[in-house]
Amino acid sequence: MQNNIINNWQIENGEEKDVVLSSRIRLARNLKEYKFPNRSDIKEKTKVINYLRDKIFYLKDQNYDFYLMDNLNEIERNVLHEEYLISRNHVQYPNARALFLNNEKNISIMINEEDHLRIQILKPGLEFNNIWNEINNLDEQLEENLDYAFSKKWGYLTSCPTNIGTALRASVMCHLPALVLSGKIDNILGAVGKFGLTVRGVSGEGSNSEAELFQISNQITLGFSEKEIIEKLESVIKQIIAEERKSREYLLENNFLKLKDNVLRSFGVLKYAYHLDQSEALKYLSRIKFGQDTNLIEEKLDKNLFSKLLFKIKNAHLQYDSKEKLDIEELNIKRAKIIRNELNKE
Amino acid sequence: MQNNIINNWQIENGEEKDVVLSSRIRLARNLKEYKFPNRSDIKEKTKVINYLRDKIFYLKDQNYDFYLMDNLNEIERNVLHEEYLISRNHVQYPNARALFLNNEKNISIMINEEDHLRIQILKPGLEFNNIWNEINNLDEQLEENLDYAFSKKWGYLTSCPTNIGTALRASVMCHLPALVLSGKIDNILGAVGKFGLTVRGVSGEGSNSEAELFQISNQITLGFSEKEIIEKLESVIKQIIAEERKSREYLLENNFLKLKDNVLRSFGVLKYAYHLDQSEALKYLSRIKFGQDTNLIEEKLDKNLFSKLLFKIKNAHLQYDSKEKLDIEELNIKRAKIIRNELNKE
Repeated sequence: MQNNIINNWQIENGEEKDVVLSSRIRLARNLKEYKFPNRSDIKEKTKVINYLRDKIFYLKDQNYDFYLMDNLNEIERNVLHEEYLISRNHVQYPNARALFLNNEKNISIMINEEDHLRIQILKPGLEFNNIWNEINNLDEQLEENLDYAFSKKWGYLTSCPTNIGTALRASVMCHLPALVLSGKIDNILGAVGKFGLTVRGVSGEGSNSEAELFQISNQITLGFSEKEIIEKLESVIKQIIAEERKSREYLLENNFLKLKDNVLRSFGVLKYAYHLDQSEALKYLSRIKFGQDTNLIEEKLDKNLFSKLLFKIKNAHLQYDSKEKLDIEELNIKRAKIIRNELNKE
Repeated sequence: MQNNIINNWQIENGEEKDVVLSSRIRLARNLKEYKFPNRSDIKEKTKVINYLRDKIFYLKDQNYDFYLMDNLNEIERNVLHEEYLISRNHVQYPNARALFLNNEKNISIMINEEDHLRIQILKPGLEFNNIWNEINNLDEQLEENLDYAFSKKWGYLTSCPTNIGTALRASVMCHLPALVLSGKIDNILGAVGKFGLTVRGVSGEGSNSEAELFQISNQITLGFSEKEIIEKLESVIKQIIAEERKSREYLLENNFLKLKDNVLRSFGVLKYAYHLDQSEALKYLSRIKFGQDTNLIEEKLDKNLFSKLLFKIKNAHLQYDSKEKLDIEELNIKRAKIIRNELNKE
């Protein structure tokens, strides 16, 4: 794997970036002439990889690196997973699975996941329109050379019936510290379900997200056009953004002191701690982002500090450039050091 | 009260100052020709004050300021109490009580505490010999002009029978973080009792001292000479110092990482916190002193930071130079600010 595997999309700017860290759309596609991955053997899967390899390499606009999961070690696969570029199954069952990744590392095409192709584009901020245009364009280019499994009645066919139709899943990662702090998060998340959307805490269960990060995505793929699905999701997200901002204002007006103290202590701890487990680090980093977005922190900090560190401090990323296998204590020390160095930059 | 009431003895150097913050000796003395304070009325007590006033003003070597407790407000009295210069009773029942205080503010003579005179000298570090010479000299000068209540059989007579004889109490304030961290403190404190000494946590109960500070003093005043009492106390203290240093070494060898993390986080919190109650502040300051004494903190800090801040951050000190009465939240903000400013000095 190339040394520059750690991607950069997360440190760019994007719309609504005080609340929305990133947006992602993925399309599931299958080839008509091959058995779907959940029903095919290694031989057939290998044929699919070889077949797609040529087609994708010659796509215009982008250059892709190609990775056979079997040729990567577990740490490399985990790095890709931590960056949301491959699934957990691609890490755990690498046999006859592959990945195409563009140079910017925001377009990934997984081969032989649940479906033959899982095409994904990630961008910082709330950027569904741009992502949709790009992914739709990419999908059309692929379709020129590939024969997709498609039914006029059902739309795109997928291994799992919950994906058929558009086979589109759009999601955002939102930072909702004020909704968490004010205890409103559970109500909001409950309401979101009623709109046919799914929410889950990132690096945590349910509303118990370590970094106060939540992924919101569409549940329904059938019966609406792609545009309709995206617009519906976007409109709910905009309401959540408004609620989060309202809560921030409310907390700043009514709990200024407690907030400022909490944020600055988190800053102090991260600036000096010598040993940080992932969960603690995420918790404090979340407070620092909150402090930056609300101007509670006066120090001049990189405004993309959070999204930048969010990946760099995860275990596989920490392990990646070490020659030796690090134990948990060594990981915690290295994590603390990376954060210290970042926060002590002028 | 003069504006420079906050004294400076605690920021000087002294022997064994990594463990012993300060030493103190006090002598209880009563005048033969007056009823003891526990049996006399306001009129008699006022006579005692007036009588002693002249005698003490004309002592050689030192200039004394004279304070009638009734002429000080409660905050001023509390400041003196926080500096260990007057007793809790002098704060609470100011009527017909007084204080002589030298310019250096390390010699205090309370009038009409439990005894007519309570003479005290404080010095930084373990300094019993110097203190004993000074206080003995001062006592002799006073005795030239005063007729002390003294019995050949019992020695100096005092209001409370536990003080008769030498009427001397010597004490040290020790910083014992490693004995606390390693859980050995209770054994040590238990053993100390067997030597006729008393230990108590400072700003806390028993072994539960907020700043890991313990006051160790002699219990017995009768049947031994002053020199013997002091030597015995000093020898036990030296053993405690040795135990504390041994524990520090042990912890540094076996728990380096945990210690360094703990110390540096405390430093980070104090450097940035916006709101600190007294108990938290003492806890973290204690860890910073520990970090300085064990070189775990690399930043160049004032080596007497702890003893300096120990007094400045107490409630009455915080209140003292404010025009308005501060509520608890304002005190906590001011405390955090003083500490922040001190730690952010270059």
